[in-house]
Amino acid sequence: MDYVYGPGRNHLFVPGPVNIPEQVIRAMNRNNEDYRSPAVPALTKTLLEDVKKIFKTTSGTPFIIPTTGTGAWESALTNTLSPGDRIVSFLIGQFSLLWIDQQQRLNFNVDVIESDWGQGANLEVLASKLAADTSHSIKAICIVHNETATGVTNNLAAVRKLLDHYQHPALFLVDGVSSICALDFRMDEWGIDVALTGSQKALSMPTGMGFVCASPKALEASQTAKSVRVFFDWKDYLKFYKMGTYWPYTPSIQLLYGLRAALDLIFEEGLDNVIARHSRLAKATRLAVEAWGLKNCTQKEEWYSDTVTAVLVPPYIDSSEIVRRGWKRYNLSLGLGLNKVAGKVFRIGHLGNLNELQLLGCLAGVEMVLKDVGYPVKLGSGVAAACAYLQNTIPMIPSRI
Amino acid sequence: MDYVYGPGRNHLFVPGPVNIPEQVIRAMNRNNEDYRSPAVPALTKTLLEDVKKIFKTTSGTPFIIPTTGTGAWESALTNTLSPGDRIVSFLIGQFSLLWIDQQQRLNFNVDVIESDWGQGANLEVLASKLAADTSHSIKAICIVHNETATGVTNNLAAVRKLLDHYQHPALFLVDGVSSICALDFRMDEWGIDVALTGSQKALSMPTGMGFVCASPKALEASQTAKSVRVFFDWKDYLKFYKMGTYWPYTPSIQLLYGLRAALDLIFEEGLDNVIARHSRLAKATRLAVEAWGLKNCTQKEEWYSDTVTAVLVPPYIDSSEIVRRGWKRYNLSLGLGLNKVAGKVFRIGHLGNLNELQLLGCLAGVEMVLKDVGYPVKLGSGVAAACAYLQNTIPMIPSRI
Amino acid sequence: MDYVYGPGRNHLFVPGPVNIPEQVIRAMNRNNEDYRSPAVPALTKTLLEDVKKIFKTTSGTPFIIPTTGTGAWESALTNTLSPGDRIVSFLIGQFSLLWIDQQQRLNFNVDVIESDWGQGANLEVLASKLAADTSHSIKAICIVHNETATGVTNNLAAVRKLLDHYQHPALFLVDGVSSICALDFRMDEWGIDVALTGSQKALSMPTGMGFVCASPKALEASQTAKSVRVFFDWKDYLKFYKMGTYWPYTPSIQLLYGLRAALDLIFEEGLDNVIARHSRLAKATRLAVEAWGLKNCTQKEEWYSDTVTAVLVPPYIDSSEIVRRGWKRYNLSLGLGLNKVAGKVFRIGHLGNLNELQLLGCLAGVEMVLKDVGYPVKLGSGVAAACAYLQNTIPMIPSRI
Amino acid sequence: MDYVYGPGRNHLFVPGPVNIPEQVIRAMNRNNEDYRSPAVPALTKTLLEDVKKIFKTTSGTPFIIPTTGTGAWESALTNTLSPGDRIVSFLIGQFSLLWIDQQQRLNFNVDVIESDWGQGANLEVLASKLAADTSHSIKAICIVHNETATGVTNNLAAVRKLLDHYQHPALFLVDGVSSICALDFRMDEWGIDVALTGSQKALSMPTGMGFVCASPKALEASQTAKSVRVFFDWKDYLKFYKMGTYWPYTPSIQLLYGLRAALDLIFEEGLDNVIARHSRLAKATRLAVEAWGLKNCTQKEEWYSDTVTAVLVPPYIDSSEIVRRGWKRYNLSLGLGLNKVAGKVFRIGHLGNLNELQLLGCLAGVEMVLKDVGYPVKLGSGVAAACAYLQNTIPMIPSRI
Repeated sequence: MDYVYGPGRNHLFVPGPVNIPEQVIRAMNRNNEDYRSPAVPALTKTLLEDVKKIFKTTSGTPFIIPTTGTGAWESALTNTLSPGDRIVSFLIGQFSLLWIDQQQRLNFNVDVIESDWGQGANLEVLASKLAADTSHSIKAICIVHNETATGVTNNLAAVRKLLDHYQHPALFLVDGVSSICALDFRMDEWGIDVALTGSQKALSMPTGMGFVCASPKALEASQTAKSVRVFFDWKDYLKFYKMGTYWPYTPSIQLLYGLRAALDLIFEEGLDNVIARHSRLAKATRLAVEAWGLKNCTQKEEWYSDTVTAVLVPPYIDSSEIVRRGWKRYNLSLGLGLNKVAGKVFRIGHLGNLNELQLLGCLAGVEMVLKDVGYPVKLGSGVAAACAYLQNTIPMIPSRI
Repeated sequence: MDYVYGPGRNHLFVPGPVNIPEQVIRAMNRNNEDYRSPAVPALTKTLLEDVKKIFKTTSGTPFIIPTTGTGAWESALTNTLSPGDRIVSFLIGQFSLLWIDQQQRLNFNVDVIESDWGQGANLEVLASKLAADTSHSIKAICIVHNETATGVTNNLAAVRKLLDHYQHPALFLVDGVSSICALDFRMDEWGIDVALTGSQKALSMPTGMGFVCASPKALEASQTAKSVRVFFDWKDYLKFYKMGTYWPYTPSIQLLYGLRAALDLIFEEGLDNVIARHSRLAKATRLAVEAWGLKNCTQKEEWYSDTVTAVLVPPYIDSSEIVRRGWKRYNLSLGLGLNKVAGKVFRIGHLGNLNELQLLGCLAGVEMVLKDVGYPVKLGSGVAAACAYLQNTIPMIPSRI
Repeated sequence: MDYVYGPGRNHLFVPGPVNIPEQVIRAMNRNNEDYRSPAVPALTKTLLEDVKKIFKTTSGTPFIIPTTGTGAWESALTNTLSPGDRIVSFLIGQFSLLWIDQQQRLNFNVDVIESDWGQGANLEVLASKLAADTSHSIKAICIVHNETATGVTNNLAAVRKLLDHYQHPALFLVDGVSSICALDFRMDEWGIDVALTGSQKALSMPTGMGFVCASPKALEASQTAKSVRVFFDWKDYLKFYKMGTYWPYTPSIQLLYGLRAALDLIFEEGLDNVIARHSRLAKATRLAVEAWGLKNCTQKEEWYSDTVTAVLVPPYIDSSEIVRRGWKRYNLSLGLGLNKVAGKVFRIGHLGNLNELQLLGCLAGVEMVLKDVGYPVKLGSGVAAACAYLQNTIPMIPSRI
Repeated sequence: MDYVYGPGRNHLFVPGPVNIPEQVIRAMNRNNEDYRSPAVPALTKTLLEDVKKIFKTTSGTPFIIPTTGTGAWESALTNTLSPGDRIVSFLIGQFSLLWIDQQQRLNFNVDVIESDWGQGANLEVLASKLAADTSHSIKAICIVHNETATGVTNNLAAVRKLLDHYQHPALFLVDGVSSICALDFRMDEWGIDVALTGSQKALSMPTGMGFVCASPKALEASQTAKSVRVFFDWKDYLKFYKMGTYWPYTPSIQLLYGLRAALDLIFEEGLDNVIARHSRLAKATRLAVEAWGLKNCTQKEEWYSDTVTAVLVPPYIDSSEIVRRGWKRYNLSLGLGLNKVAGKVFRIGHLGNLNELQLLGCLAGVEMVLKDVGYPVKLGSGVAAACAYLQNTIPMIPSRI
């Protein structure tokens, strides 16, 4: 039942699915239950309340949907928009590309603002489009907060500023899949109308839950949106919320308890501390990359992602070989380069329930892999750079002081 | 973290989600993995092959979708049909009703054949419709194999016979949610074009996987079907099947290994033995109901379901009170009566990884609950009737002989 | 990895090891930890405090030893007695026999008071021995509170009364293996000097922890007791208690957390409610036995055990065949008859984390087995008798009212 | 229920208990079973056969005892020796000291050969004692194969050579607690009479099983050995082996299945590969220590342990502070210095189911801790040295080639 066994732990550094803490695995280790008994709604109520906290919203309405990030995208779009609606969408990497592909297949009129892979969303073009759109033909702005393929984090506050500046009523739809619970994310403050994420990312759970949170404006839009939808329709959820039974169809009992445990851990650490930890691990990773003499795929510091680092390799190396070799020799799982950057970058995911020594083991592994594939890395150099930073910045574990 | 604790096991007899065997819980007790490593496709390949066996198909193409039964419905419909298509659908209970609701919301032209709740699909009406439809305006027949709300099993072979008799080319779409892996189900032999089920039913897993299996004819239809779809689009799966990586988006690693374990158990017992066990447990349940002097909601023997029994209570009793009391006093989870039969029936789910003594514990519990709510049951009567039958029919456990 | 698989749950009704609640299994589902970190002593401290509660002692000192009941026996004896010491010990069944065997092999001078198997300790003989022992040559009275082999519960309060009556200073050593946490047990009130149990009995955990609790008098005796001991020596524990690190050698991290969960469940239900539940299940079992026309191996009601019922079968039936057949056909695990009562009794263990419907499933199974082996049982009769009693006495589950 | 939570994994590098592989945790995640059913003996039979392989014996008889290493010691001694017997025992560190303490408390006449802590057993003294002992008053030689406190591995083959040279019939008793399954160990070839280990060491399981393996000569000795013993008496095991039921008292069902999984993993990797992996990890650790400018507590290369490295710190540093800080700041668990070397050494355990990147994470952590406590380590230096060696020596994972 275990495919391709290797001794010791697998070092999981893909940008999702990520490491699940033992506490969450434990919480999920259970039989099914009747989801119509009083126990499940009682549990669900606490989950919905607490999920709002990770979105930093008080006015939003969360939906926990038995689906993946792709389904969460579909839920965000089809509940708020009608076929033919004009939407502005930023293409900056593979995941924004896939979302745009979905937008097009769902028959929206997608106005794509493309950037080079490695750059963030081009907000100047957005500004000009908003300025020009006096008739408010743009119904929504769709943006991926953190492009997992290139390690680029977009500036959501700046998008909001532009919308406000032009007093543009477009809905603001944000993919927070590899950001929420790891990066600074403020749904209410930034006036986001729909934000979404998935359980297997910074929440550090198995795949299977899509989290979609809707602002009052988005909820209102959902009443007139004409996109055909059933499974992803918020209406069914709202009906069951009203009844207090919460679930229009069978939820995963195991994931509900897993979510409870995951949220408890995040709140125990403190969401701000969680975000600071991600920032620390990311900075250490970038220092290691620099020490190796390699370049970050992300072209400017303002876009550096604190959840994933895409590393450019020299042209004489196939980055896929790095990933393959990491897995085959070191039980290390790194992210492949995707699409336009296939073969050119490998990715280190540093999100979720992770600590510094785990990351340092990974960085040491990357160094050996680099040497294996013929890159003249100085062994230990990246780890040394990372340690120099981390040793100065890691806080004591509060519960152990 | 455990809501409303009671000593001892919960006796889970809702018709889904059902009891998960320890072997499956164990197999799922694991960290995430990179689903793009060679391990996951290797595992997936075995799963797809073996899933075909539970559908009894060799020519079908299975899709394992991270969704629930509701999503599996949507996948079956949107991949094979276009808005406005005429479909014939049978309304015989709450789940067929919900599917019809979905069909209508997806903008199909639904020709509903309604039966009393407690009766099976009216095939005479189907026959007349097929006879009249010389222009082949009917694009699909949609039928729920086993209506979970009323405990009615429809005769799929008879539907196929009618289609053949009238040489009608309509697609034959079957909800096998509470039937596949429990009732006799023969996708190829019965010429079913799309069959579907969910992981939390007779497969005895957590919720989270929708299984949809498409015949070659259904696959062909999917190439021209105009229903808008992205998350549920088979095309994306087929693309990744061809590449050998299998997953267009992140699957649940835990459910993949859980499915492997669940299938292993089913094949170890033997699918035919699994079906025979369900038949035996169902017959025992019906004998108990009879001994209690109560009526089966299912009106004729030909429709008796071997996965769930809906029991009619006398008018002076509220069946919801039976369910409530079972849970509150005996740690027994029974199924509520839904919609038209709310308050009138309670349901005993006897599907999945279950054995005779578990059922007998449940039946004893039901007897006490009946007495609690004022029904003059003779305590022990149902158990006695069930035992008399079971003691004559239970085979020895093969591995223990 | 699973030997002799059968569908559905195993119905575990041996008098130990018993069913483990999911909460305890979950708590144990974890990696090892450094037992010298501050976390483990912090946990241990709570455990030692709470273990005292299940012994109903405030003055006792508990030892949690990585061993079984047999080891706990050895710990109790060797820490308090010296070779050659005269001890009075009651032989009433297989487990008291094994303890006596141990006592003899440890070179004590064992004065055995034997009863027929099925009878309790003969306290009249004890009284005469105490009366005669004016020189106080008897150093200890050893008694098994609940003889698991015959389902006999001895009257500990009466033993204490005799000791007090004769003002006899003998140590009072009690095997509470199949009693503590299930039967009324009062270490302080009954002046017990050493009491012991094992984790796999009413605590509903895996095997692996022996619990030994010593009164101040027993602790004092340990300072002069000359029996050779190292692994079982309390002195090493006391040394580490003083240091606050608690463990002279490596404990099982998993069992420590499992014990925490097990105690939490017991206190959540309430120890008195736990005991009442055992009494209820036992009474129901005895009513079933009576309804089957069979006899309890326990000869008088005063000795009836609330944790295990030993059922006598007619001479023409081999009780081992009942156990074998239960397992082979019904996935039911019953206890064998041991030694003198081998072939003559089978045993139903009804202790630990168990509820009424679980027991009723077992009783229905026993009825079918009895019929299988040729005993003319009226099917349903035992269940009916048990239900009639239980339906009148089961309380509502407090957390669900 | 989780004490002192910190984000990410705990990095467990104490020399026991060690990291448990997920496969073993999974295998143990189960309910109790009747250990008298046919399933448990069937499982046990495979375990006993396979345990012999890790001892490298075909003629030995293994005992799996529900105890710890301390109990295994007691079993080895009491079954083969009589009070007053002269035994030669080597004192080279804390664990040999504890064993000697036990030997003395068990009333043997212990002839201690002491070495400085950091040195191996003084075999010259042994040689002279054997030479002098023409009357064969020495009944046993007791030696700890790997002294966990100082990271010293003794040369067992050399001991055997001496015994053979002097044709001395003394029993050869070996503590293999931190060696078996990790270091080269050959019971039969080296003529070892009793070898022992514990589950929580290189077998990578929870604590709770003591493994004792007896040569035919040891078994014969057990028939006349006069040491008082019951719980640890091999006789009871042998009796149940003969009956085919194997267990004189209740084993832990969970540990039995865990052992099955642990052995399966070891054989899948190959015992020789497991040993080579330990050698590789140890060498890498020592290179790091050297790069840090620190000294190994082990004084000569011939004694270097491949399972634990004890690192001497400069006199101005308290090694306990290193351990404390590792845990409080980096979630890193290192071994304390014990007794004579308390405050002077910290220990890195590198045994069990562990791989290179895990170790490198630990080494990076140690570097930061060293800096924290004021030692002028060059960050990255140890990791660089380890990587340089490992990158040249790590084999591909066979199942992934």
